Parts: sequence; structure tokens; C-alpha cells
Amino acid sequence: MRNIKLTIEYDGKRYLGWQRLGDSEKTIQGKIESVIAQMTGEKIEIVGSGRTDAGTHAKGQVANFKTNSEMTLNEMLPFFNRYLPSDIVIKKVEEMPDRFHARYNVKGKQYSYYVWNDPIPTAFERYHSFYVPEKLDVTAMEAACSKLLGTHDFVGFSALKKTKKSTTRTIDEISIKQEGSMLHFTFVGNGFLHKMVRILMGTILAIGSGELPLAVIDEVFENKVRATAGETAPAHGLFLDEVYY
Amino acid sequence: MRNIKLTIEYDGKRYLGWQRLGDSEKTIQGKIESVIAQMTGEKIEIVGSGRTDAGTHAKGQVANFKTNSEMTLNEMLPFFNRYLPSDIVIKKVEEMPDRFHARYNVKGKQYSYYVWNDPIPTAFERYHSFYVPEKLDVTAMEAACSKLLGTHDFVGFSALKKTKKSTTRTIDEISIKQEGSMLHFTFVGNGFLHKMVRILMGTILAIGSGELPLAVIDEVFENKVRATAGETAPAHGLFLDEVYY
Repeated sequence: MRNIKLTIEYDGKRYLGWQRLGDSEKTIQGKIESVIAQMTGEKIEIVGSGRTDAGTHAKGQVANFKTNSEMTLNEMLPFFNRYLPSDIVIKKVEEMPDRFHARYNVKGKQYSYYVWNDPIPTAFERYHSFYVPEKLDVTAMEAACSKLLGTHDFVGFSALKKTKKSTTRTIDEISIKQEGSMLHFTFVGNGFLHKMVRILMGTILAIGSGELPLAVIDEVFENKVRATAGETAPAHGLFLDEVYY
Repeated sequence: MRNIKLTIEYDGKRYLGWQRLGDSEKTIQGKIESVIAQMTGEKIEIVGSGRTDAGTHAKGQVANFKTNSEMTLNEMLPFFNRYLPSDIVIKKVEEMPDRFHARYNVKGKQYSYYVWNDPIPTAFERYHSFYVPEKLDVTAMEAACSKLLGTHDFVGFSALKKTKKSTTRTIDEISIKQEGSMLHFTFVGNGFLHKMVRILMGTILAIGSGELPLAVIDEVFENKVRATAGETAPAHGLFLDEVYY
């Protein structure tokens, strides 16, 4: 059987997230699997690099699937983009060795989070950024980002219940770029727990607005209590940019 | 009476265009006039710098209105943005001399037109650019842009029926910037006839794809026949960037 890797861009606004839920049509996975069924005649389950939440976007989500289809890669790509809804786009189709697995082989990921920080809202970026009208203190947020770097148990910054699996992760980079009124946060790390980027963002923004002190970060690393951290920032500011293998 | 100038950004996707049509709620002008009624208690007609077509966007549309309201400008701005739908944003509210008229005083305008030129579509810019999968010849399009510069009778590049008014306009600048797969066309001129930017764009794109020869431009300047020019490019790639006074 052939092993096909997909690189996928999607606008998450209309969807319940990546993961197919029963027969629901409102997930990215479900939409892609229906087009594969149409294309190959096979009922195939695709494996994503990880889930994305309802409303979260992706510029480089990755998935793979096994197929007996003899279609060429050059035939598959336009077939996908003709039959998928216009808010899901396959950017790349590649043939991989049999052992490639989109979830198990992940070495790291990059996420972006966009915040529109201006007393005046934005008509164009309203579904692709979180609107914060109150002036944020970028220097305080940069200090928060520095504190989060490195290897820590991030369970207090996640939506996970008790788990036996390790909740230790390494964040290699968090940067803040100002592009006019848009603050563009980038996170690079070896893995991110359930809702971790959104809870980190909620905490960073609470520090930027003065609602929480910088010390809250060490406190959550120590007490591992979700409620001590900031709120979960909304899904529609979040983009999965790239998955590293 | 006070004379108030508004600078307006809108995502035109959901609207029938700028101009109010009877009592229809689906126009930008209509939406803004309802909020003014709510704000001042006055039934006021606002004057736009010009119409924009159904589906066309604006980053800097300008309008003015006269009012007896005593609200300060600092109170008006947030009132507008609280009560307008999130795809219409007032960027600026200014007090003007009585003689200022948003349409009569226009000295020039800048428009942008975006074309996504890639075999792979875009999930995020699909409502804010025209998708052309076939490779366009940028050099040929630049030659077309040069030919359009200057003062000409543009009636053949407009949707106007016979008119006694002058259809001579001056285009000072047309530029093409490539930003990855996005082609960003900018038009600056002293005025643009009805649908003129979209018909110019349709003609430039037909020259870029080899469908029409470069000579078609001189032909339309001479014969003044709309049908000789290219098709009208779709409204959703067009943005009114700025109005000059």
C-alpha cells in the first residue's frame, strides 16, 4: 500500500475542529476523508499530526493515509482542491516510506497567535485574530515569554485531567512581532498539551494587561493548578503553522 | 450644524455595496445611517466619496454628514464601533469646515486589486482576492499598466451608458507588487468611472494570460467600445484604499 502525506491549510471558522466526531460533516478530518472516498473508492481513516480545536486555523497541518489507489500525486492534488470546500486547501501531496506516521513521528510544531491591539477594531482580520482594545505592555509580555522557555511540566497550562503520560514539554522559542496594530506571537516547541498554546496566550495577555503578575508563571509551574493560570484565549486567534518531522 | 467626516473600513462580502437602496439593510450606507439615527435621534443622509459595488471592500472610504448632536468625537467613535456590525469599522471621526463635501471635494483615489496566482488556492484570502490558477505574465501586464497611465477618455473601460459628462480621467500610477503568490495591483488617479478599475483589471489579466494582445488598450481608447476590452474582474478582489482631498 502507498503512504500519502498531506500538508493542509484551513480556515477553522466553520468547523468543530480537526477530529472527526462520528459521522459529523463539520470537521476537517471528516471533509478530507469524504474526498478521499470519492477519489479512491476506499473508506480510509487519515491520521493527523494532532487535533486542532473548534475554530482554530492551520497553515501547515499534516496528515497521512494508506491507499491502494494508483492515481498520481499530480492527479490527487487538483482533485482534492476541486472537491474540498474552499476553506480547506491541500498545499502538498507527497509519497512517504511505509513507516511514516503523521502523529508518532512529530518532532516539533510551530503555532502563531494573532492579537489585534488597538482601540479601533479590524474589519478584515476579525476572524483571524483576538481583539484586545486595551493597550498591552509588550515588555511585560516579553518577560513572560522568556520565563516560559525551556523544559517544564506544563500540566497547569493545559486542559488535561490527571494523566499518567508525561506532561513535560520543551519550548524553544516564543517571539512577539508588532506589525502595525497586530501582535504576532510565535511558539516553537517539541510538543504542546491540549489547549496549551491558548492557555499560555491567556496568561501572557493577562500579564500584558496587568491583571496577573509575572510571578504567576513560576507559581503554575510549581502548584500545577490550571485555575492559577490565565483564561483560555479564544480559538480564532490561533494558527498551526508547521509540523516538524 | 456640525459637519462630521468618517473614514470607514469594510469587508464588502455580505453587502449589496455602499449605496442605500430604499430601506434595504444590506448596504454600508444604510448600516451607518441607522447607527447615526440611534446615536443622534436625527434621520440623516450621509454622503460617500463615491459608490462601491456589491462585494467590494474598503480600507479608507470617506463620508460626511451634518448633525446638531453635541456628542464629542471621542464619544462618537466607540459608539459607532459598538453598534455597527463587525465587518464595518469607523477608523476616524473628524470635525470639518461646513463646506467640506465627501463627493464634490475628491481630488483622487487609490484602489488595490489582489490576484492569487498559484495552481494551489488560498483558504484565508479567498474572499479578498481573485483566484487565477494559470501563470500570468507579469512583464506583459506591466506593459499594459504603462499604456493605461496618463489622461485618456476611459469610457470604453467603464460600465457607463452614453453620458454628457466628461469621461476623461487621469491615472497617475499603476503598480504590480508580487508578495509570494499574491499579485497586488495599485491604482492611483484623479477619478474612476463606474466599474472602471474592475474592467481595467479584467483587461490587464487577459493580456497577462495571453487572451488579448497589448494593442487592445489603444483600440479601446480609439473605438470607445466596452465590448472590445476584457471582462469585468470580480468585485471581491477590489479595495478602495484611500480618498484624497
